[in-house]
Amino acid sequence: MQRIHVTCTQKKCVCPGCSSLAYGAMEELGPFRVNSDGKTLQKNKYSWNHAANVLFLESPAGVGFSYSNTSSDYDSSGDRRTAIDNYIFLVNWLERFPEYKKRDFYITGESYAGHYIPQLAHTILLNNKNANKTIINLKGIMIGNAAINDETDNRGMYDYLVSHAIVSDQTLHDIRTFCNFSSGTIPIQCPTALDEYNQDVLFIDIYNIYAPLCNNPNLTAFPKKNLIVGDPCSGVYTHSYLNRANVQEALHANVTKLKYDWESCSDLISSKWSDSPSTTIPLLQEFLTNGLRVWIFSGDIDGVVPVTSTKYSIKTMNLSTKTTWYPWFFNGEVGGYAEVYKGDLTFATVRGAGHEVPRYQPGRALSLIRHFLKGTPPPTTKRQP
Amino acid sequence: MQRIHVTCTQKKCVCPGCSSLAYGAMEELGPFRVNSDGKTLQKNKYSWNHAANVLFLESPAGVGFSYSNTSSDYDSSGDRRTAIDNYIFLVNWLERFPEYKKRDFYITGESYAGHYIPQLAHTILLNNKNANKTIINLKGIMIGNAAINDETDNRGMYDYLVSHAIVSDQTLHDIRTFCNFSSGTIPIQCPTALDEYNQDVLFIDIYNIYAPLCNNPNLTAFPKKNLIVGDPCSGVYTHSYLNRANVQEALHANVTKLKYDWESCSDLISSKWSDSPSTTIPLLQEFLTNGLRVWIFSGDIDGVVPVTSTKYSIKTMNLSTKTTWYPWFFNGEVGGYAEVYKGDLTFATVRGAGHEVPRYQPGRALSLIRHFLKGTPPPTTKRQP
Repeated sequence: MQRIHVTCTQKKCVCPGCSSLAYGAMEELGPFRVNSDGKTLQKNKYSWNHAANVLFLESPAGVGFSYSNTSSDYDSSGDRRTAIDNYIFLVNWLERFPEYKKRDFYITGESYAGHYIPQLAHTILLNNKNANKTIINLKGIMIGNAAINDETDNRGMYDYLVSHAIVSDQTLHDIRTFCNFSSGTIPIQCPTALDEYNQDVLFIDIYNIYAPLCNNPNLTAFPKKNLIVGDPCSGVYTHSYLNRANVQEALHANVTKLKYDWESCSDLISSKWSDSPSTTIPLLQEFLTNGLRVWIFSGDIDGVVPVTSTKYSIKTMNLSTKTTWYPWFFNGEVGGYAEVYKGDLTFATVRGAGHEVPRYQPGRALSLIRHFLKGTPPPTTKRQP
Repeated sequence: MQRIHVTCTQKKCVCPGCSSLAYGAMEELGPFRVNSDGKTLQKNKYSWNHAANVLFLESPAGVGFSYSNTSSDYDSSGDRRTAIDNYIFLVNWLERFPEYKKRDFYITGESYAGHYIPQLAHTILLNNKNANKTIINLKGIMIGNAAINDETDNRGMYDYLVSHAIVSDQTLHDIRTFCNFSSGTIPIQCPTALDEYNQDVLFIDIYNIYAPLCNNPNLTAFPKKNLIVGDPCSGVYTHSYLNRANVQEALHANVTKLKYDWESCSDLISSKWSDSPSTTIPLLQEFLTNGLRVWIFSGDIDGVVPVTSTKYSIKTMNLSTKTTWYPWFFNGEVGGYAEVYKGDLTFATVRGAGHEVPRYQPGRALSLIRHFLKGTPPPTTKRQP
């Protein structure tokens, strides 16, 4: 049930195939959280529904309740296909609920969504242009702890783990010296260094380097009453909840009775994913040219796509600064730091948040999405809301 | 009541003059913690008394309840005088409690104690040698988040705050380029960069970069029942408690009725401190040569004397590695990382701990002191205690 441990010995550290219903809706920004009994819910007072109408998409087919009637489809999943399918879904959804057609539309996501979201946004812009009308009224995108550029993502991850005293300088040095993943032959020192690396990260939650682990992955007979920010076992509760027959019935999900359990991350597709460009930065640059609002945020205690990676990635864009680095505030505390670039791109960190930002810092995350939707930068003073 | 905010624009980021009774005893490793009413106590189940007999020293005169009859003494405080006074105190204490004379003796401390402790240990070794007998049976020292080498302490602090996305790369670059504190003239860009820096760190607790602030510094009418790890207002409770007449009477403290409140950090002396060598590393090296056990630990979310500083400082010693960097365990979790050097010096980080390590990670800290006293390295496997 725990997220598959990503050892990051491969080129990419984050994989496609995880569910927005699992993470996004049930453990991060959705209106409810599952209690520790795996069957009752509590309200999430920091739900993003307070700021907007939110639609969660389990994508591509093979993830969560999404499926294909042609099982061979799972063997040919990839970024391009996902973007096209997501676009078709959206257009159909707007046909089904036409009252939303003219509304401002924003897309957000985290992790591998650093691919999905720019690619979907690009597809929307392209189709609007080809059709010479606004099919989908896209205004902006926001991505968090997002894979956007392999080279800087990887370099930033190693630098982060060293500067956060998880991996030693020596191991980093050895990996840099001996592990050239693009070359054919790998010297013996490389696997040794990677072994060291794996030993260092294996027993912590690399998605939140200071979080406790889920040591008792059992449901409780009675629900825990209080909303617990970042309960390490919350994935267990969600798994149980979404596999309940009455829940699936209420959600109108799994009507075809899939032959497998609902899972937060899909093994079906992630291993066969080949269509994954090394960067989505040209797309972000395209959006800035087209006046789309682009926000990039980063929970600063994530070790998978860390803040260092995102800083490096943004740096490759060579943007001019509009507002230099400053602390932004939520509820009288520093919510993180922000920098605004001409374009108009906003980068904001979220202090004390892991990979799933709204899970670990729900208040700060809700504040960010509100400012994003309003088009105002994260507040510079303690007094602002 | 809050610790004085150290802006670190000076050469040193940590100052002498804080009390071991305030921090060490009442908020970190002592047998009791003060409740939120400021007058009742709760037991600290992670007290270091479970591992050893512990003596707390408010030092030098002018700190806490320690005083001098000659008030001009406060104007001439310094490292040398502190070491001599501390030594005299210890010898007298052992005369008064001779049953402890032959016991193994260890000294530990944090922050500016990176000066006090090596200097006191050096004084003990010197006096033992001069007297040609064991006056104090010193076996080892342990220091945490300790100022030990100005140059690396400072460099490490800036690097830490940048890699932890608190200060921007640009500000660091400007400080490095324009702020040469040893030169006579300072270009205008330097104060500008330092202003930026101060804005970035001013509103967070730099002693624990992810901690909440104390927003309601009032005592409660009723004590909070549970031991709260790292209550941001605990300093308020301690201040109230140690200024109570009945508490002072019970402690046999303040019998001369000082004309000022007991304070956790002394303004009396810290501003006039001039005798502070730029490094205590030669003393650490002396101890290794003399077979003294030396442990250096580091809470890894402290921004004042961060883990980066301590890593840089140890590196200047050019030691050979005995056991390379590995995760150590407490209670089935990674307690931090450790490296053992020939000599015999052990470096251990404490994961998720701020400047006051036993305050934020009491279990991990107690485990560390136990291993230190036993002379066994922090455990390499999950199963070990």
